[in-house]
Amino acid sequence: MVNLGVDMHKLCERLFPICRSITGDGFRESLDILRNELDLQDLKTFEILTGTKCFDWEIPREWNIRDAYIIAPDGTKICNFKASNLHVVGYSTPVDKEVSLEELQEHLYSLPEQPDAIPYITSYYKERWGFCISEVEREKLISGQYRVYIDSDLKDGSLTYGELIIPGESKDEIFISTYLCHPSMANNELSGPVVTAFIANWLSSLQSRKYTYRIVIIPETIGSIAYLSRNYKTMKERVVAGFNISCIGDDRAYSYLPSKEGNTLADTVATHVLKYSHPDYIRYSFLERQSDERQYCSSGIDLPVCSVMRSKYGCYPEYHTSLDDLKLVTPSGLLGGYNVLKKILESLEMNETLCTTVLCEPQLGKRGLYPTISTKESNSIVKDMMNFLAYCDGSKTNLEIAEKINAPIWTLEDTIKKLKEANLLRTVA
Amino acid sequence: MVNLGVDMHKLCERLFPICRSITGDGFRESLDILRNELDLQDLKTFEILTGTKCFDWEIPREWNIRDAYIIAPDGTKICNFKASNLHVVGYSTPVDKEVSLEELQEHLYSLPEQPDAIPYITSYYKERWGFCISEVEREKLISGQYRVYIDSDLKDGSLTYGELIIPGESKDEIFISTYLCHPSMANNELSGPVVTAFIANWLSSLQSRKYTYRIVIIPETIGSIAYLSRNYKTMKERVVAGFNISCIGDDRAYSYLPSKEGNTLADTVATHVLKYSHPDYIRYSFLERQSDERQYCSSGIDLPVCSVMRSKYGCYPEYHTSLDDLKLVTPSGLLGGYNVLKKILESLEMNETLCTTVLCEPQLGKRGLYPTISTKESNSIVKDMMNFLAYCDGSKTNLEIAEKINAPIWTLEDTIKKLKEANLLRTVA
Amino acid sequence: MVNLGVDMHKLCERLFPICRSITGDGFRESLDILRNELDLQDLKTFEILTGTKCFDWEIPREWNIRDAYIIAPDGTKICNFKASNLHVVGYSTPVDKEVSLEELQEHLYSLPEQPDAIPYITSYYKERWGFCISEVEREKLISGQYRVYIDSDLKDGSLTYGELIIPGESKDEIFISTYLCHPSMANNELSGPVVTAFIANWLSSLQSRKYTYRIVIIPETIGSIAYLSRNYKTMKERVVAGFNISCIGDDRAYSYLPSKEGNTLADTVATHVLKYSHPDYIRYSFLERQSDERQYCSSGIDLPVCSVMRSKYGCYPEYHTSLDDLKLVTPSGLLGGYNVLKKILESLEMNETLCTTVLCEPQLGKRGLYPTISTKESNSIVKDMMNFLAYCDGSKTNLEIAEKINAPIWTLEDTIKKLKEANLLRTVA
Repeated sequence: MVNLGVDMHKLCERLFPICRSITGDGFRESLDILRNELDLQDLKTFEILTGTKCFDWEIPREWNIRDAYIIAPDGTKICNFKASNLHVVGYSTPVDKEVSLEELQEHLYSLPEQPDAIPYITSYYKERWGFCISEVEREKLISGQYRVYIDSDLKDGSLTYGELIIPGESKDEIFISTYLCHPSMANNELSGPVVTAFIANWLSSLQSRKYTYRIVIIPETIGSIAYLSRNYKTMKERVVAGFNISCIGDDRAYSYLPSKEGNTLADTVATHVLKYSHPDYIRYSFLERQSDERQYCSSGIDLPVCSVMRSKYGCYPEYHTSLDDLKLVTPSGLLGGYNVLKKILESLEMNETLCTTVLCEPQLGKRGLYPTISTKESNSIVKDMMNFLAYCDGSKTNLEIAEKINAPIWTLEDTIKKLKEANLLRTVA
Repeated sequence: MVNLGVDMHKLCERLFPICRSITGDGFRESLDILRNELDLQDLKTFEILTGTKCFDWEIPREWNIRDAYIIAPDGTKICNFKASNLHVVGYSTPVDKEVSLEELQEHLYSLPEQPDAIPYITSYYKERWGFCISEVEREKLISGQYRVYIDSDLKDGSLTYGELIIPGESKDEIFISTYLCHPSMANNELSGPVVTAFIANWLSSLQSRKYTYRIVIIPETIGSIAYLSRNYKTMKERVVAGFNISCIGDDRAYSYLPSKEGNTLADTVATHVLKYSHPDYIRYSFLERQSDERQYCSSGIDLPVCSVMRSKYGCYPEYHTSLDDLKLVTPSGLLGGYNVLKKILESLEMNETLCTTVLCEPQLGKRGLYPTISTKESNSIVKDMMNFLAYCDGSKTNLEIAEKINAPIWTLEDTIKKLKEANLLRTVA
Repeated sequence: MVNLGVDMHKLCERLFPICRSITGDGFRESLDILRNELDLQDLKTFEILTGTKCFDWEIPREWNIRDAYIIAPDGTKICNFKASNLHVVGYSTPVDKEVSLEELQEHLYSLPEQPDAIPYITSYYKERWGFCISEVEREKLISGQYRVYIDSDLKDGSLTYGELIIPGESKDEIFISTYLCHPSMANNELSGPVVTAFIANWLSSLQSRKYTYRIVIIPETIGSIAYLSRNYKTMKERVVAGFNISCIGDDRAYSYLPSKEGNTLADTVATHVLKYSHPDYIRYSFLERQSDERQYCSSGIDLPVCSVMRSKYGCYPEYHTSLDDLKLVTPSGLLGGYNVLKKILESLEMNETLCTTVLCEPQLGKRGLYPTISTKESNSIVKDMMNFLAYCDGSKTNLEIAEKINAPIWTLEDTIKKLKEANLLRTVA
């Protein structure tokens, strides 16, 4: 399993240098790498043309960039896109001219509080050009003429996203959404698509699945809005639980951000798993959302989607800077995130509604499931079994019973199997 | 606005010397002063005849008093009604005779724990006469014969109350009740009718009102019972929120006493306003009620009425004594109470049920309502707007959403206005 | 009342030496003593034949024992059944042979942590023989041959239980269950049947009862399963509240273990009584159940049954050992348990739904129920009366109102009587 963490980290390394945005070839190339590396041939690519209306929004023009830099008065090249693609404000229009330091300053972005970091800045819906620079470098700038050069284009094209449907026995769906539109940053956001792709690989490898899985890899905000505009009616019929997967690769906190009302199956299973596997997880408020749960839980959409993270976007110092790099995201961080998401899905897969087939407690002793001699001690496995049976009246799901009896649902797997083999449980439709 | 507090205090000063009771000319005179001072020509006076049945009660005889005193053995005049009308037990029958000190003592009321205070005592429904005196004065009494003199009468007459209906666009009503039956005391109770009259003046001055306002100025207990016996069916149909306004003029606590179940619109808006404007307000239990909410929330009446106060009746040392005077009640104390009640009514006026007109988040950037450049910081006004929109699905009132998103409703006024102007919100019936 | 405690303790003393089990003559003899000592001639004895199917279970063979002991190599008699019937494992098969110390050890049970205690061990459903011995005695055993002798038989027979129906005005039932299958132990379990029998005697002595009482004295587990298999349909129709009475005779804690959902009338009344009479009572979780509430609250049975105890089974050091004796159980301990159970039943008997007959507060003064002179102080009896009336709108039971107004229901008895006499309350069906 350590290898799995290492493999995920290696994939992050490969994707890291590519300059992604909400449209453009960097996004397409990254999606292709995920498909091929994890053998996800059913991961389909969709393109939506510039200008297409999606609810209140419109697909923007497609942005691509080849190079960018500034030549200082002394001839040195700074803000070199090829050294870090964060140096260019996302969606910068092309420029090639000489400007004074004063004029340049109006196009520069830095973080005085984090003087060594290059910030991540975008301007998707208003045309401007700009460069991001560390405060340390900015302070070295001298008076004089600077040549600013951005070789980008902003043209009619399309927005790209990936969708993978992994069929299960039921038409009911588990939805997983992650976004791939960020350039060279690691926790936010290569960890999300990488962990999701590995989870998709694991799900595909299962002999059977109860649920159908709908997995999307999209650009943030406009991507989820566009996807919903095409699919929300089907999703409202089918999706029983969904997860926004983001910032899931560092070694610090586990975090949970609820759905709008906080009471969906997604919330129940996510908090159940986190409570027992990482009891010190941080519970955020829905009011602190800043990612695609904004759209999934918006008025009228209201899908049962919550977010599962490690260090949450906006809440760790490296967020949206060049410090969010491949040292911050680690093999063990990615593996921890993967394991939580896997346990959530496994818990959902074993979540069903059962009912005992006999009245009163069954006589477990004659089936070898109960001690034949009384003593003062009680056995915790037996106790959990008796408690499970007490609540197993056809009105509660296994997950609800596990919450009632204070037992992680996965510790009940063997008990349920034995009780089913003894014909003491039947499934309730 | 300081002037408003001063004006309210001046009106208290003018009303203070008048000897009011649950019936009689002092009540009528005080009501006339409120009407004329605040230009409330629609404040109607009603009279209910002695003997009229009101549910389990009957309107008592009318009490009026002209003078009262005691002549001590040494010829000095004590317990002089003209010095303080608190010296006479309310509803005292006429008396004019000589009594021994021993007999007199049985008709005297004082407060050993508050030796300088004259207590406020009444005996509305059992005929007796009595004097109230400070403990200090009582201890000075010497043996001998005392002449006791009360020039009062208790005759068939009527009970007086005032009612002001201020019409609004809707037949739904906001109800405000306050009582004017106390003699020379200031917090309990000149503050209630004075603040209420100023609020009525403000309401009348508004260009339009969503709600109709039903404002009553009554004697306590028998007045609310009598008023309800005539109006409760209409009120049960129309009143959406009501407030008992009492003890609202000192400079100490803000207090709230819930309706019987504590979950009405009146409770929601009162606690919303107090929580954000005076977070240290005291929340009492309904079990601690002692005012007209007793009747408004009684079994079978059950109107949505709660009480908003500053230092609650029964919970401050000066209560029901001569110490509850015009030094205890201040211009700033009255103004604070007025402002809380005004904010409650303003919050109700802007409480409606809205629904977004688009699915997913609207694109606010193109309307100048959202930053066009991404940064790490988030703007709290924008955040509140996004949170408001997330809950704005036609199933919640603005007040419920304000509670959900932890924002005072009045801070959302501008946001709602802008969103309406952008056609992003529609009103739900 | 001290005599009652002494009487209960004397009955425990009389029953203590009898060797009871889930079947057999010891159980029958004990049941007869309870019937005769407390004049419970309607306490019927029922027998269910060995082999009878009861849900998933079958009535076991009947076990009787006359003598048992071990002769040590030095000729001394140890583990003498006649000295303590705990020395024999319950349901031991007959044996009469010589065994080595090594073989003997496999049949011995002791408690290293409690070296002076003989443990209580049973093996109802798997045939074995065994002796229980204190650790101190066990350590003295020397090498050599031991004669083990158990003069018992395990034959087709029947399981015995007692049932007492005490009729009331209503067919609605209060159910009380206790078990009598334990040999020489006092808190668990002579206290339960002894307190229950005394309560039955008190209930029988009442001139009238609102409820019918269904009282069963059974063997634990198999007894409640057998009883339910014959009666659960009637019980699900009629039982409004039930109590499992066990471990109710020592001087330590009062304990409560809720029904499965914890929200039945039985739970409400038990916690109401304990909260006001013994506020330091211990509230256990349903997950900690180990007695007949296991069956009463099992899936599909789901009767409104909770448990009321003093030191709970499994939670006091003497539990299931020879230390649970007549010094642990005391007259005052038994009396305390009796009083709590009696107060619970009295509270249920006075629990009805009432409604005021007038709107607004009634005028209590004219009926002598309210002070005729106002003062600053408030009277707690009057306050409780006013609070009771405020909630008395025909939608809540007296018990629910008592909870709302923070008053023990029994303190309202006089108030309710007076209000009924004044025709201010009517009963709601």
